[in-house]
Amino acid sequence: MSFDDFRRHGHALVDLIADHLETVEQRPIVPDVQPGWVRSQLSDAAPAQPEDFDDVLADLTRVVEPALLGWQHPGFMGFFPANASLPAILGELASAGFGQIGMMWWTSPAATELENHVLDWLVDAMGLPGAWRTDSGVGGGVIQGTASEASHTAMVVARQRAVERGASTDELVAYGSAQAHSSIEKGAKVAGYRHVRLVDVDDAYALRPEEFARLVESDLEAGLVPAVVTSTVGTTATAAVDPLRSISQVARRHRLWHHVDAAYAGSAMLCQEFRHHVDGVELADSYVFNPHKWLLTNFDCSVMWVADRRPLIDTMSIAPPYLRNEATESGAVIDYRDWHLPLGRRFRALKLWFVLRSYGTDGLRAMLRQHVAMARGLADRLAADPRFELVAPVAFSLVCFVHRDGDGATDRVARHLNAAGDVYVTPSVLPDGRRFVRVAVGQARTEQRHVDRAWQLIDVAG
Amino acid sequence: MSFDDFRRHGHALVDLIADHLETVEQRPIVPDVQPGWVRSQLSDAAPAQPEDFDDVLADLTRVVEPALLGWQHPGFMGFFPANASLPAILGELASAGFGQIGMMWWTSPAATELENHVLDWLVDAMGLPGAWRTDSGVGGGVIQGTASEASHTAMVVARQRAVERGASTDELVAYGSAQAHSSIEKGAKVAGYRHVRLVDVDDAYALRPEEFARLVESDLEAGLVPAVVTSTVGTTATAAVDPLRSISQVARRHRLWHHVDAAYAGSAMLCQEFRHHVDGVELADSYVFNPHKWLLTNFDCSVMWVADRRPLIDTMSIAPPYLRNEATESGAVIDYRDWHLPLGRRFRALKLWFVLRSYGTDGLRAMLRQHVAMARGLADRLAADPRFELVAPVAFSLVCFVHRDGDGATDRVARHLNAAGDVYVTPSVLPDGRRFVRVAVGQARTEQRHVDRAWQLIDVAG
Repeated sequence: MSFDDFRRHGHALVDLIADHLETVEQRPIVPDVQPGWVRSQLSDAAPAQPEDFDDVLADLTRVVEPALLGWQHPGFMGFFPANASLPAILGELASAGFGQIGMMWWTSPAATELENHVLDWLVDAMGLPGAWRTDSGVGGGVIQGTASEASHTAMVVARQRAVERGASTDELVAYGSAQAHSSIEKGAKVAGYRHVRLVDVDDAYALRPEEFARLVESDLEAGLVPAVVTSTVGTTATAAVDPLRSISQVARRHRLWHHVDAAYAGSAMLCQEFRHHVDGVELADSYVFNPHKWLLTNFDCSVMWVADRRPLIDTMSIAPPYLRNEATESGAVIDYRDWHLPLGRRFRALKLWFVLRSYGTDGLRAMLRQHVAMARGLADRLAADPRFELVAPVAFSLVCFVHRDGDGATDRVARHLNAAGDVYVTPSVLPDGRRFVRVAVGQARTEQRHVDRAWQLIDVAG
Repeated sequence: MSFDDFRRHGHALVDLIADHLETVEQRPIVPDVQPGWVRSQLSDAAPAQPEDFDDVLADLTRVVEPALLGWQHPGFMGFFPANASLPAILGELASAGFGQIGMMWWTSPAATELENHVLDWLVDAMGLPGAWRTDSGVGGGVIQGTASEASHTAMVVARQRAVERGASTDELVAYGSAQAHSSIEKGAKVAGYRHVRLVDVDDAYALRPEEFARLVESDLEAGLVPAVVTSTVGTTATAAVDPLRSISQVARRHRLWHHVDAAYAGSAMLCQEFRHHVDGVELADSYVFNPHKWLLTNFDCSVMWVADRRPLIDTMSIAPPYLRNEATESGAVIDYRDWHLPLGRRFRALKLWFVLRSYGTDGLRAMLRQHVAMARGLADRLAADPRFELVAPVAFSLVCFVHRDGDGATDRVARHLNAAGDVYVTPSVLPDGRRFVRVAVGQARTEQRHVDRAWQLIDVAG
């Protein structure tokens, strides 16, 4: 491909993406394909000779587009949003085009310092502890791929700290609420924890700190070594918020690492009125939130902060001779290779920088508040209707409800929503076993009319 | 940003990238910036109001471009190449634009099946074991971010298998050669191994299998549990190749998991004449190679294959209620969430698909052979010059040499190469302590004249 070809095909692809996103609302959210359909459309072997790139682009329309789930459809209210805003898409393009490997400051000063900088911007814009700033604090921020990876990293650091104090890995215990994301249990298992405690929750599905304290004490009595606890700010099922301050108090008393998973709800901390949900966060050891969920930055972009970067770097640093360089040895720079498992890393700060500058923090706040207002509006309608019951507080933009006639009726509502093709939800199950409908408002292009449409479908099926 | 704005800014950014790459050769490879310069160019706080995107794009030229390392410069011969080819850049753009989260087949049939398919293409195109095909074999392939992550995954599976047989995590031992990449030691530590053995190498810097066998037996006698060994095909320092068949024989005798790290040299397996280097690979349990190094696919794209997918999935699978769906329960699909640590994942198969179709396998073979021929040409010049000594065989496209006058003279050559601005190398250290110059030919746009230029600089400084 010549540079001229690249310009031509690149312009065509930009237009194809614009067309795709501009018309995504006219296509069903759930693709009408059976397992194996995509593969059946492709040649059995890789081509030996170059193909015309126009044919490749045509296959995006022929094979790829019909088999996409409508994550970018404004009626997408499943899982949590995974917003790919237009400036973020361009940030990803710039990152790919510059082809940097930012493993160390030295291997890409731009990638390293821009990441330092935009994460420091976010510390201030979100009212997070000043000690987390990379430039003036003892902590710092790093972009990882997913909250799964960030939480796993925290658990590895916690494990290392406990082992250095003389514990056996076999004795270590990790804690999280019974409503924590699956990545907490998975991260603990992958990190080698053989004891994972999923702590009981209260009526609002938040971790009970007194139950956590009781489990820690009982594990200590049994000769085990409590090492890490993960709190969640905005659980996946119901957006519940664990009490950070009380959990930190227990964690500090028994020297556990306290990690906070704010993957979804963390974005809301841009707005002052949600910050009471992270009261006590200055006592936590690490914190993760995903701009790739609710902050318009396309996946992947998961921001992790640590209150003290030394234990993280001590755990993750390996320095072979081929990576030695003056900048690193001077101590004047951040080398992100020592902040996570991977060595190589993309220039992901670009897309976050593009988003922050294109929307401005006030623009992002307005979007977040609009989503929350739309979610509350839907919740008000449900609460006012005797057929339905809200089963969780609407702290952010997630609405959870059941039909009072039981699981069958609830499932009927969920099926009716998803069968329409222009709304999509992912139902789940409450701790008491009841099935419920989750409506996750937050897709970047969701407007009031999309939430009205969801209500219309609920109303008809109810 | 409106869709019209996106088209306009997208076209401008495509052109900016084309200009950047087309003129990259005219800029010095190593940026002339001091720590802190990038940050000093940026505003102290995130903007509250939206900025004009033209200003954002202008800042790419003002702040970002001057602080990039020339990974895409044709004179880049440091580390290993990290090629961002033009089709791959467009693949990354398409991936960002479609905004898919391919955690399960259900959440993106296109992302899942295209990944299944192109990795099966590669199995055949590279002469790898048919059992590794996802469609017809019991194994399968998955794209991970980095070889660090893939190798860590293998070590976690090996750990899990040993623990299930009754071992304590504290007793487990991981093995690799003393020349293995730092990610092998780091991956083992992160996976919780407290015993990591870096096995002695022979005169060609390849792991000595008899020494490996001896260490395993001695660890067994000491009551430890050997669990995993990593062989390297193309070590970072000198591109040495460990003897896979002999290592597998020892591994099988003692029930160790055998992981193969072919991060750099794996791309060469497209060509029949290099496949003797992976003789015995059908006995391995897992294998990783990086298309993002030498196969023109922009970072990140690391392909991992397993010979049997069951132990991987058993180790990595956690299925909460909000991820349940019919397709998964039918067993007819691959759900990649169970193939690695992260839950969310990008549509990375697109860029590999774009590359394979744009170049064709024969086109890729021609590029690989040209790089190897250029490397051998340089090696011949060095071997014919009494001032220099080749210190490793040139099995692929990496040339390693010293000045016979010792470290001072070798360092002088390396400094002269890097001071020129149009060639870049990363020197390293041999096991015997001698410093050496590494010339890693393999940047996508490297031509004979760039290698001639390197030789000219070596000749002058020598």
